[in-house]
Amino acid sequence: MYVFWNLLSFLIAGAGIAYAVHVFRQIMQRDQGDEKMQKIAKAVQDGGKAFLHAEYKVLAIFVAVVFVLLCLGKEEQYLGWKTAVAFLMGSTFSAGAGYFGMYCATRAAVRTTQAAKTSLGAALDIAFKSGTVMGMTVVGLGLIGITLLMLVYHDEQTNFANFVLGFSFGASSIALFARVGGGIYTKAADVGGDLVGKIEAGIPEDDPRNPAVIADNVGDNVGDVAGMGADLFESYVGAIISTAVIGWSLVPTTLTGDAHSSAMTSLLLYPVVLSAVGVIASFLGTFRVKADDESKLSAALFGGLIAASVFLVIGGALVTMIMQPQPLHDIGSTAAPVSHWMVYLSVVLGLAVGVAIGKVTEYYTSEKMAPAQMIAQQSQTGAATNIIHGLATGMASTWIPTLLIAIAIYLCNEMAGMYGICVAAVGMLSTLGISLGVDAYGPVADNAGGLAEMSHQPPEVRKRTDSLDATGNTTAAIGKGFAIGSAALTALALFSAYKVEAMKEAAKNSQAFSLSLDDANVVMGLLIGAMLPFVFSAMAMRAVGKAANAMVEEVRRQFREIPGLKEGTGGEADYARCVAISTQGALRQMAAPGLLAVLAPILMGMVFGKAAVGGLLGGATVSGVMMALFMANAGGAWDNAKKYIEAGHLGGKGSETHKAAVTGDTVGDPFKDTAGPSINILMKLMTIASLIALPLFA
Amino acid sequence: MYVFWNLLSFLIAGAGIAYAVHVFRQIMQRDQGDEKMQKIAKAVQDGGKAFLHAEYKVLAIFVAVVFVLLCLGKEEQYLGWKTAVAFLMGSTFSAGAGYFGMYCATRAAVRTTQAAKTSLGAALDIAFKSGTVMGMTVVGLGLIGITLLMLVYHDEQTNFANFVLGFSFGASSIALFARVGGGIYTKAADVGGDLVGKIEAGIPEDDPRNPAVIADNVGDNVGDVAGMGADLFESYVGAIISTAVIGWSLVPTTLTGDAHSSAMTSLLLYPVVLSAVGVIASFLGTFRVKADDESKLSAALFGGLIAASVFLVIGGALVTMIMQPQPLHDIGSTAAPVSHWMVYLSVVLGLAVGVAIGKVTEYYTSEKMAPAQMIAQQSQTGAATNIIHGLATGMASTWIPTLLIAIAIYLCNEMAGMYGICVAAVGMLSTLGISLGVDAYGPVADNAGGLAEMSHQPPEVRKRTDSLDATGNTTAAIGKGFAIGSAALTALALFSAYKVEAMKEAAKNSQAFSLSLDDANVVMGLLIGAMLPFVFSAMAMRAVGKAANAMVEEVRRQFREIPGLKEGTGGEADYARCVAISTQGALRQMAAPGLLAVLAPILMGMVFGKAAVGGLLGGATVSGVMMALFMANAGGAWDNAKKYIEAGHLGGKGSETHKAAVTGDTVGDPFKDTAGPSINILMKLMTIASLIALPLFA
Repeated sequence: MYVFWNLLSFLIAGAGIAYAVHVFRQIMQRDQGDEKMQKIAKAVQDGGKAFLHAEYKVLAIFVAVVFVLLCLGKEEQYLGWKTAVAFLMGSTFSAGAGYFGMYCATRAAVRTTQAAKTSLGAALDIAFKSGTVMGMTVVGLGLIGITLLMLVYHDEQTNFANFVLGFSFGASSIALFARVGGGIYTKAADVGGDLVGKIEAGIPEDDPRNPAVIADNVGDNVGDVAGMGADLFESYVGAIISTAVIGWSLVPTTLTGDAHSSAMTSLLLYPVVLSAVGVIASFLGTFRVKADDESKLSAALFGGLIAASVFLVIGGALVTMIMQPQPLHDIGSTAAPVSHWMVYLSVVLGLAVGVAIGKVTEYYTSEKMAPAQMIAQQSQTGAATNIIHGLATGMASTWIPTLLIAIAIYLCNEMAGMYGICVAAVGMLSTLGISLGVDAYGPVADNAGGLAEMSHQPPEVRKRTDSLDATGNTTAAIGKGFAIGSAALTALALFSAYKVEAMKEAAKNSQAFSLSLDDANVVMGLLIGAMLPFVFSAMAMRAVGKAANAMVEEVRRQFREIPGLKEGTGGEADYARCVAISTQGALRQMAAPGLLAVLAPILMGMVFGKAAVGGLLGGATVSGVMMALFMANAGGAWDNAKKYIEAGHLGGKGSETHKAAVTGDTVGDPFKDTAGPSINILMKLMTIASLIALPLFA
Repeated sequence: MYVFWNLLSFLIAGAGIAYAVHVFRQIMQRDQGDEKMQKIAKAVQDGGKAFLHAEYKVLAIFVAVVFVLLCLGKEEQYLGWKTAVAFLMGSTFSAGAGYFGMYCATRAAVRTTQAAKTSLGAALDIAFKSGTVMGMTVVGLGLIGITLLMLVYHDEQTNFANFVLGFSFGASSIALFARVGGGIYTKAADVGGDLVGKIEAGIPEDDPRNPAVIADNVGDNVGDVAGMGADLFESYVGAIISTAVIGWSLVPTTLTGDAHSSAMTSLLLYPVVLSAVGVIASFLGTFRVKADDESKLSAALFGGLIAASVFLVIGGALVTMIMQPQPLHDIGSTAAPVSHWMVYLSVVLGLAVGVAIGKVTEYYTSEKMAPAQMIAQQSQTGAATNIIHGLATGMASTWIPTLLIAIAIYLCNEMAGMYGICVAAVGMLSTLGISLGVDAYGPVADNAGGLAEMSHQPPEVRKRTDSLDATGNTTAAIGKGFAIGSAALTALALFSAYKVEAMKEAAKNSQAFSLSLDDANVVMGLLIGAMLPFVFSAMAMRAVGKAANAMVEEVRRQFREIPGLKEGTGGEADYARCVAISTQGALRQMAAPGLLAVLAPILMGMVFGKAAVGGLLGGATVSGVMMALFMANAGGAWDNAKKYIEAGHLGGKGSETHKAAVTGDTVGDPFKDTAGPSINILMKLMTIASLIALPLFA
């Protein structure tokens, strides 16, 4: 049965990839529009390529170094070549998914603009399909990697799933570069370009004369497509693998022989098969996404997500009935195993909480709701009151998502113990094929709108791209909330795996181990862990400033040295150079926060031991969740408060109120697009690095 | 010996109070200046009285309700009349200290202005003496209360120190009103007054025609004198009493008879006697504070603090030698007790960390240092970059203080176990008599400067008050850092007491109890706890906005209804009415965050039990420390970045750069004076409320 379930999941994942390629081909066959549109689109595509090429050079060195280090480790400590190969696969697959998703998104945008000349429905179709390509590629590659490794490494004697953790580690490492570097990149290009272009040279926003304008557009793809994709790829594989690792330790000890094998197969592969069902559910859900007029757009996208969720609830029940995963409630528990229906309920709860967190995020950030409108109103008394209320809104927005996650943890543990908490994360992420599709639709619609502006399309085209874009902002906000929620639950699942492995490691050496708040080491770790997201955020925000300065220098140089560029009388801007400068700045600036994330837990573990690291991870997770929610939601609310005013309320565009709101939006940029989302990676990467380095700890 | 040590400490505390009264009389004998000065000073004094009267009406009801509830509890659960009386004493003493300190500060300010007509040294003398009155009153009343209760409740069979916890609870409840209400009050008056006065009516700042101007000056005293005093009163008594509670449980179990009694006396009274030595050390330190010219001001104040610390280190060694406190390393430990010199080293370490945190705070907020100057430079590109860098500075500023606290916890635990962590808090707070004096000097100097402005004193007088004020800003920043550090360590000491009591309670009912991060309840608590400081801060920041609006209405009404007021042609502003409006607004707005602090842990405990509350307290403490440091230091840095520009750098007052810096300063106001310091109380009050309500938990 072990091979059967693995192969079945592998095939479903392969079908997912095939579907992604099929949809990609459909997109490529669409009309690319006139020469002007194509020229601009080409510049964005080249810019994306330039970013990825520069990024991959750095990554190749990093991956090679870690690969060698892992190979040097001992196999009995779950290091050595098996972990190294898994790591290599994880990083390659994550990078590949990012490359393909971004390749597709930069090509879909121009076709979306062209389709908007015909109808809203046609434009939505392309933009959403591009998102689907990203979603299906991420889940397909993730599952293919996991099933392959679980087939090859399969061994009934060792907890071979620990080797598979290398895959998750590889995914996390790439995610760090993609998310943090991408976040710095996108805002550096945005801010740096505006400073010289709009303020110094006096040319309008999105003007092709500004060499940074393409970097700005590339930035949207880099941050919101590739960055978001890598983030969720990491959560996806992290949740599945940590469940498998824990499942190994929760097989009822009373079973022997075939019963034991069969129980182990169920517990190891339940998250894998469930995710495969999720691929099918996502596939089916995509057919629900169709809309002809603006009012139905948001409902169509959300309808697809709900349809996929319903399919998963039904399919998940079937899988549960067949596989019957019945784990122990806790390690070494002597009570009867947990009922498989309780495990199933945990999956459903995780799924529901994911959708709910997305909806709460929408409430706090949407321009149609009270919080963002309140910030808009406070802009009437100036920038200071706008900022104060934006910050307060972000802080207040933490409470419902936190309670939802806390209640999920409580109930899942009551119902199905540690395994329950882990499968809740799997459940939340199971429909990622479509939910990531809905997110990644946003930046495509955004870029399509930008293209329509830059190529001076007629008003009805822009109106259509604008309504696609407005809906894209909402789905992007939902996506950010979902990314944080799933990162939190995945970090907790990985944390459970850390606790289990630390306990086993200590037992091996006949040491006592506890993660109790009685222990001064744990409290010390908790404090230092809680501090890290604050320092990490500070570093990310400052990095944006520094990288933006490098961009300012380059744009000034081009205006100075390329004759006729600034005046628009000839002279072509060197977009690729600008993009490369920004890329290098971003990659350089993200080194320090990246090292902090990997080295902090490892150093802590070597000096103060496993319990201190446990505290560190706990502290970083809880304070990280708050900071991520605070910054993402404050940023989203500021953005939409500005849009609310731009829609003609409270004096509209150009008024003093609008100026105050623009200040808030600018503060929100590094909040929501750099520091906030980077913390998702921090939480997960720290935990996975600790899991891998565990045998080295004191 | 028990009675001897108690009486000795009681007498020293009494001498401290006597000294405070003596210094107060000295201040009152000084010249109050001309009629104009006296008139303005009178208005501030009446305003302060108006605030306290309104506050005490609310407090009386609150205290009465809690008193009755406590009386209804069972004595074997450490509730009942003993706890109720201790609670009543704690709240009365805290209120009394606040009243007296503020009474003195509002009278000292005008005399400082008058003395500044003669010399800087004379002015410093009065301002610092007023701070000394506050400092000595707080430590004197705190120690008198504790020693009295420990004498009367003394009982060798029960852990009677648990009844004394009521004193700490009373202090915390008052602190909540003083700190949160005061923080809302001061910023509501500041912002509300400016909005109508400066913007609508076009009259300058600090103009006596503005009815809110007195409320603004009262606010400085309410927030920085009474609020800070209540905050540190709470830390002071919390640290001493939690050490005593834990000391009871850490008496070596191998001892019997007299040896047992004597060991218990040492462990119970060591923190008390040490604090009494601190009163003497502070008294001696005050004589070092003398300066004739500006350059020596800061050194004189810091020199007094260091002198007191040296006296404490010497006196503490003597006390340690005589009392020989030798606790168990941990509850139920079978190892040999800890050496008393290790206990002593923990005290010294706590003292050193307190001074160090203050100095780090000074670095991050002083206008002479890089961080604030960097924010000033970033103001050149507008308000948005000013805000981004201010936020990043605040976030980055968490790292050194957190590491200092974490290292202190680690080392104290290694040296002297749980008792070591608790006495470190006592050590940090032992010289409070002078360190609070140095803090409370700031607002007096500030008010003296305001009085000099309003009463149009000659330039040399203003120059002197300005240099007093500048130094006051630095010492106030140091004081805020110290308040956060001591709140963190006190919260951890109280948390240790919670763990011990929860364990004993569970053992009594033969239940297992652990605070392990394995337990889903603890993790759930940790998450919710980490969320509370964010939501609490959001509430506090919004409360400022709402209370400011009420103030705006009242100022408008007075301008409308009192003939000749606005024009300055007659008509007296109704300051008291304005002060009362602001007070009521503040008291009304602080009810919700206050209830959150008390009810969250109690509700959590009743529904989810002791372990969940343990997680909640841990989460709230670690995220609270970060938020408090972040907000206080960001606010301080913004304030001084503005002052740096006003001193003539980067374009000076009135430039665009200055305008951007003013925006940052306004955002910083509720950060550093309302939300940030209120979190100190949140951490401590939640823990003390949990300790008191522990027997009611599931």
